[in-house]
Amino acid sequence: MSKVVKNLREAIQLCKLEDGMRISFHHALRGGDLVMNQVLAELDTLGMRDLTLCASAIFPVHEPLVEHIKSGLIARIETDYMSGPVAAAISAGLLQQPVVFQSHGGRADRMRLPEYQVDVAFIAASQSDCMGNCSGRNGKSAFGSMGYAFSDAAYAKQVVVVTDELVEYPLADFSIDETCVDYVVVVDQIGDPSLIATGTTKMTRDPIQHQIARTAAEVIEASGLLRDGFSFQTGAGGATLATAQYLAERMKKAGVQGGCCVGGMTGYLTNLLEQGYFKTLLDVQCFDLAAVESLRNDPRHREITATHYASAAAKSSAVNQLDVVMLGATQIDTAFNINVHTDSTGRIIGGSGGHCDAAAGARTTIILAPLIRHRVPIVVDKVVCKSTPGQTVDIVVTQYGIAVNPQRQELIARLNDAGIQTVPIDELKRLAVRIAGEPDPVPHGTQIVANVLYRDGSHSDQIFACK
Amino acid sequence: MSKVVKNLREAIQLCKLEDGMRISFHHALRGGDLVMNQVLAELDTLGMRDLTLCASAIFPVHEPLVEHIKSGLIARIETDYMSGPVAAAISAGLLQQPVVFQSHGGRADRMRLPEYQVDVAFIAASQSDCMGNCSGRNGKSAFGSMGYAFSDAAYAKQVVVVTDELVEYPLADFSIDETCVDYVVVVDQIGDPSLIATGTTKMTRDPIQHQIARTAAEVIEASGLLRDGFSFQTGAGGATLATAQYLAERMKKAGVQGGCCVGGMTGYLTNLLEQGYFKTLLDVQCFDLAAVESLRNDPRHREITATHYASAAAKSSAVNQLDVVMLGATQIDTAFNINVHTDSTGRIIGGSGGHCDAAAGARTTIILAPLIRHRVPIVVDKVVCKSTPGQTVDIVVTQYGIAVNPQRQELIARLNDAGIQTVPIDELKRLAVRIAGEPDPVPHGTQIVANVLYRDGSHSDQIFACK
Repeated sequence: MSKVVKNLREAIQLCKLEDGMRISFHHALRGGDLVMNQVLAELDTLGMRDLTLCASAIFPVHEPLVEHIKSGLIARIETDYMSGPVAAAISAGLLQQPVVFQSHGGRADRMRLPEYQVDVAFIAASQSDCMGNCSGRNGKSAFGSMGYAFSDAAYAKQVVVVTDELVEYPLADFSIDETCVDYVVVVDQIGDPSLIATGTTKMTRDPIQHQIARTAAEVIEASGLLRDGFSFQTGAGGATLATAQYLAERMKKAGVQGGCCVGGMTGYLTNLLEQGYFKTLLDVQCFDLAAVESLRNDPRHREITATHYASAAAKSSAVNQLDVVMLGATQIDTAFNINVHTDSTGRIIGGSGGHCDAAAGARTTIILAPLIRHRVPIVVDKVVCKSTPGQTVDIVVTQYGIAVNPQRQELIARLNDAGIQTVPIDELKRLAVRIAGEPDPVPHGTQIVANVLYRDGSHSDQIFACK
Repeated sequence: MSKVVKNLREAIQLCKLEDGMRISFHHALRGGDLVMNQVLAELDTLGMRDLTLCASAIFPVHEPLVEHIKSGLIARIETDYMSGPVAAAISAGLLQQPVVFQSHGGRADRMRLPEYQVDVAFIAASQSDCMGNCSGRNGKSAFGSMGYAFSDAAYAKQVVVVTDELVEYPLADFSIDETCVDYVVVVDQIGDPSLIATGTTKMTRDPIQHQIARTAAEVIEASGLLRDGFSFQTGAGGATLATAQYLAERMKKAGVQGGCCVGGMTGYLTNLLEQGYFKTLLDVQCFDLAAVESLRNDPRHREITATHYASAAAKSSAVNQLDVVMLGATQIDTAFNINVHTDSTGRIIGGSGGHCDAAAGARTTIILAPLIRHRVPIVVDKVVCKSTPGQTVDIVVTQYGIAVNPQRQELIARLNDAGIQTVPIDELKRLAVRIAGEPDPVPHGTQIVANVLYRDGSHSDQIFACK
């Protein structure tokens, strides 16, 4: 018995994939992913049309998708994050149906609902056996945690594992097991893991970012959060990663050992684990090869599902246990709403990922951002896109000052007691205007190019085509 | 945030457990389990009535259940296996509603169906954190694989983890994760792991059993099954375990390395793993403490869910990959049907467990049994209870001869070519009668005390009250 079929085409045909269906992909290989492009090319050759693409994230490497939208192969997109040429094309109004933006937790929850059930999930795996027991931990294209793929495997009607390393049955070290797999396809290459790490997952060298990071570490300590066993998440993005380093220095001085880091993992965090700063890592996604290696070798570093990481519908998830999360922003408004979907001109350049999930779960959510970026104010009256609601955001740290959500008066008092000055967020906004000038109103078209869902599936905002 | 509640009573009350509901337990602690008794005592104290008990297995330690049936606390039982005083009481007609017997794979599949959804699952765990990430691998009461508990956790409306070792969040080495757990209860003791191993999971000293085991090993080699990578399951029960040893000798001589052992694990099998006879163990249940330790330490020894082990509804399960399974029997009939539910007089003494699952999945199913047990023929015209259908059984090995299912003519030829004589099964039956006399017809009452389901949920047989 074997589920291995000849190639992608045979798998697609055996799945009886038809026009109008929903297909899914996970993004663990990030900028190095080759599976989505291969599958879409094959679907195009087969003349498919009108598909819904449920991809946990879309990167510059997925540029061929632009042509597949033009040809009508892909008619609808649901995703958690989007950057590069596809994002630019969407912002320009290429896709008629608005993109549906979800959070990482929201995607896993939504996939479970019958009305959003995926018809065929294509799951990149760096090793699989002939029955579909598979993982991302080993193999020439090892990418680490399969975090986002578990919901696809669990809830899709049919599941195709796509691997470039077929191993003997059983792969004992499986992440996803054979019980939900229909077919296994062996391809030459599922991706290039060296391209997993990108700018957003690397440590910044920008001195302003480091200044913000140092301040954030100071704020965390002053907030009284640096206690034994405290748990912690850094988003991708330079300043938040740098904070981890500054925090470690303070932990060492204070003799504090943290508990758990949650979310996407980097070599910076695995170093902290190895050095004893933290006890465990709950890993939904490996942001670099050091994280992949740590996941493979260190039992304290554990792969978790997107549901376990960030679901709002589950009985609990790891983000609920966070003491602190540090996140980035492209815009922050005076109601503490955060934009991570578009730049200041409304062009799509990202997405929630786990941003709003972690902000909702954590006891303290700290946003790190420069006050001004490329001469444009980041703190504004109203964000172009509300990715994360202000009531889940506690502290904003910029290089020019720290603003605390007025809902958190006890936090303000605590910071002031520790000698840290805070300012009303309106003042940060005024300061930004004073330096960079009042931002021009954002001109936009009338076409809605994306609907942004909050993690519970409710409507959060919409994004218009750029002019 | 924590899901830890004061005690079982508080968990029961928070679950709003009501008369008529369905509750479940898993049996990894086997003869040492203390969780079911504690929960039922508490439910009784609270005056509950008319519950359905969905226990993956019931052992002598669960004797208090007899009183709980009498009191009306437990009105219906669904299980995969039953021995000891409860089985005796059921056979005597104590429970009005017939017991529903399932297989291990069938139970996992059935729990998924809305009409059989469990209301509250109580899951014994030897370690849990405050959010319910839990496992059986470590802790003072470590019992190993949680194989049978995964379906309870995944599909029950509410899940209560019962542990005697609360650990810091997160338990990185979890088996069941927090996303499906509602409450965590800490008790003094979940069980006595030294009582996991019982007679049926220990190596026999009976020379007849060893003779049968030696013959079975010879049959396996002669059948051409001893090739590199072959996979293998032994049921519990002395003769089948002994076969593993004799098989190892033949593997060594033939220079063959097996692939995978599947099912319940013992120290005999973990030794074979360590000595390189097999490459991996897929473990749904640890039958002794050596297996628990191996599961904890050896990455080639992997815990799997009951669904992964034996589901008929899943897209595949491990039993489908078996080259050989060796199973026991209390009766075998001339149509190769197997009884493992009752003794020859119709008294309930066991159940399918994974018997019919493995028989259906494996390429070759070998039944090992003495021709006569306590002067009663084991090979008979018609089994008292059809646990496993004859069309899934290939070979019967007794100390007086080997019978092969006539559907498998090529197997008969192969054995004969290898110089192994086979006999028609009718001849085994006649021989049994010649030695022990024609068995008396089994007198039974009219009350149906159990309905036996096949692994796909269809009706297989019924068991009557004993006279």
